[in-house]
Amino acid sequence: MQIEHPYLMFLGDAPDTLAAKMATGIVDWRRDWCLGQLRLDGCNADVGVPDMGVRDAADAGCKTMVVGVVNAGGVLPDHWTNTIVEALEAGLDVATGLHRRLSSFPRIAAAAELHGRALHDVRFTDESFPTGKGHKRTGRRIITVGTDCSCGKKYAALALERDMRARGMNADFRATGQTGVLISGRGVAIDAVVADFISGAAEWLSPDNTPDHWDVVEGQGSIFHPSFAGVTTGLLHGSQPDAFVVCHEPTRTRMRGVDYPLPSIEQVIDRVVELGRLTNPAIQCTGIAINTSALDEDAAHACLEDAATRHGVPAVDPMRFDMEAVVDEIQSRFG
Amino acid sequence: MQIEHPYLMFLGDAPDTLAAKMATGIVDWRRDWCLGQLRLDGCNADVGVPDMGVRDAADAGCKTMVVGVVNAGGVLPDHWTNTIVEALEAGLDVATGLHRRLSSFPRIAAAAELHGRALHDVRFTDESFPTGKGHKRTGRRIITVGTDCSCGKKYAALALERDMRARGMNADFRATGQTGVLISGRGVAIDAVVADFISGAAEWLSPDNTPDHWDVVEGQGSIFHPSFAGVTTGLLHGSQPDAFVVCHEPTRTRMRGVDYPLPSIEQVIDRVVELGRLTNPAIQCTGIAINTSALDEDAAHACLEDAATRHGVPAVDPMRFDMEAVVDEIQSRFG
Repeated sequence: MQIEHPYLMFLGDAPDTLAAKMATGIVDWRRDWCLGQLRLDGCNADVGVPDMGVRDAADAGCKTMVVGVVNAGGVLPDHWTNTIVEALEAGLDVATGLHRRLSSFPRIAAAAELHGRALHDVRFTDESFPTGKGHKRTGRRIITVGTDCSCGKKYAALALERDMRARGMNADFRATGQTGVLISGRGVAIDAVVADFISGAAEWLSPDNTPDHWDVVEGQGSIFHPSFAGVTTGLLHGSQPDAFVVCHEPTRTRMRGVDYPLPSIEQVIDRVVELGRLTNPAIQCTGIAINTSALDEDAAHACLEDAATRHGVPAVDPMRFDMEAVVDEIQSRFG
Repeated sequence: MQIEHPYLMFLGDAPDTLAAKMATGIVDWRRDWCLGQLRLDGCNADVGVPDMGVRDAADAGCKTMVVGVVNAGGVLPDHWTNTIVEALEAGLDVATGLHRRLSSFPRIAAAAELHGRALHDVRFTDESFPTGKGHKRTGRRIITVGTDCSCGKKYAALALERDMRARGMNADFRATGQTGVLISGRGVAIDAVVADFISGAAEWLSPDNTPDHWDVVEGQGSIFHPSFAGVTTGLLHGSQPDAFVVCHEPTRTRMRGVDYPLPSIEQVIDRVVELGRLTNPAIQCTGIAINTSALDEDAAHACLEDAATRHGVPAVDPMRFDMEAVVDEIQSRFG
């Protein structure tokens, strides 16, 4: 799946900006890919880019309209269909993370066919993966893992790519979730792959590369989450990472969506090393990324210092501060 | 998915009985469900039940024709289609483990529709699963795990069901693979479930039950297999087993399909306890099932005695001998 940019962000009639979380994520990381936003009557979301219709967007050079919003139930409201069809008529491709394929809507399928446009359903994958092979691949890999779901793994991986590239390192973010796929224009929603092929899809995502190249793999779920540890394990094995960064939200006490306590950072480090050794015996923790947004400045620094001391690796907040200390650690360990 | 029996076993023109492995498995465990076999010209397979055409099978009371054979590539040869259509016309449902859905063949879909018959694709699932919740469920669960793939997990689980029932225990085999689904007439091919829903599907498979009830869950893959450990982990977490039996093939040194060494039984016990504790803190190993078919009688007994001594639980060969010692252990630990 290769999604062409620049994008027009379709926000529909989203009740608030939270409903446009996917669009916000794309604008946060690829501001220069996002030429405008299209908002219908009643839309209360705003991702901070110019309002634009589909014709103007096409004239401005947009290649894809991204349905960067979900509505209740995750389905496609009828009145959104008109705008999607207009976008296809104007020469834009359309990409979405909805639960139903765009091609299953007859008017949309017909318009895409008629105008020769692509429909990208980032929640699905049409790629046929082999099962994992477990062969050692060339090049380096780093993955973000978490004490829980939704604790900053995607943002930490994107910050790593940004800060590694800023030093001239050869690094590519490898998306494993819907928003990540739209942010990088490629990748695979690993949780949508058939179970037998999880590690095979992860192997496909970070193929052999030059010795100096780093794949920065977006982690999924948590090795301690009772709903998703299988996905996390398959992704870990297929990615065969040399290094990993643990992502953590310090005010959370229970795991998302289930009645389970949050594991400690130490438990996650130990378990990821133990399981990851299967496909990369040299796997090591090179940093901790903590979301300190719920803490004041002093408390944030204290929290990061405490984590760094306790675990013997740099601890950073990649959004509030930066990833520099973790990149230093990677360079000092791997050259 | 509920598949009606008795079955007519369709062997097509299988070159040998190995190609009819699925049919052999069904006959091994459900001889009384298998009224006959249908063999086309050139078939060299024989699963040891009477030869029968579709009309005779329908007259004899067969409800479902099982395509219990795979041909090269896993596709459906054109000349098998005629027999499948005849079976539907004769009033039989049709079940298969092929890689393509039966309903994707227009003649088969039309015949099923016309005659009101069901098509069961056991490699696929049409059930929509929620994500795993991790809630403790009532009733007891036991799962078979392995030092590798294809080392007797299905047969060990079926032998457990048989021997537990023979003692009057309330036990049900829960199929997680294609052949298992056909052997029990229900279940889910867990490796065909979308990755996000592995543990949710496992939870669905062994729901709340009476306190004396045992779900005997067919294990999949191996916690140490680089291709499939994600599936194994999700199935383990969703099954939240109270007990497990380790299956092992003592002459194997490398894991199937990959260049990885076989883990030891001890490594498997330790890792399954460590991971399984997440959803059932009381998980324990209650036996070892060893496939001793490559050993002579004395060597087999020595192998089992050695494993029992080394690991402190009964070690049995469920096919060559029986499961009695493991059932004793379960009764003594759980009452």
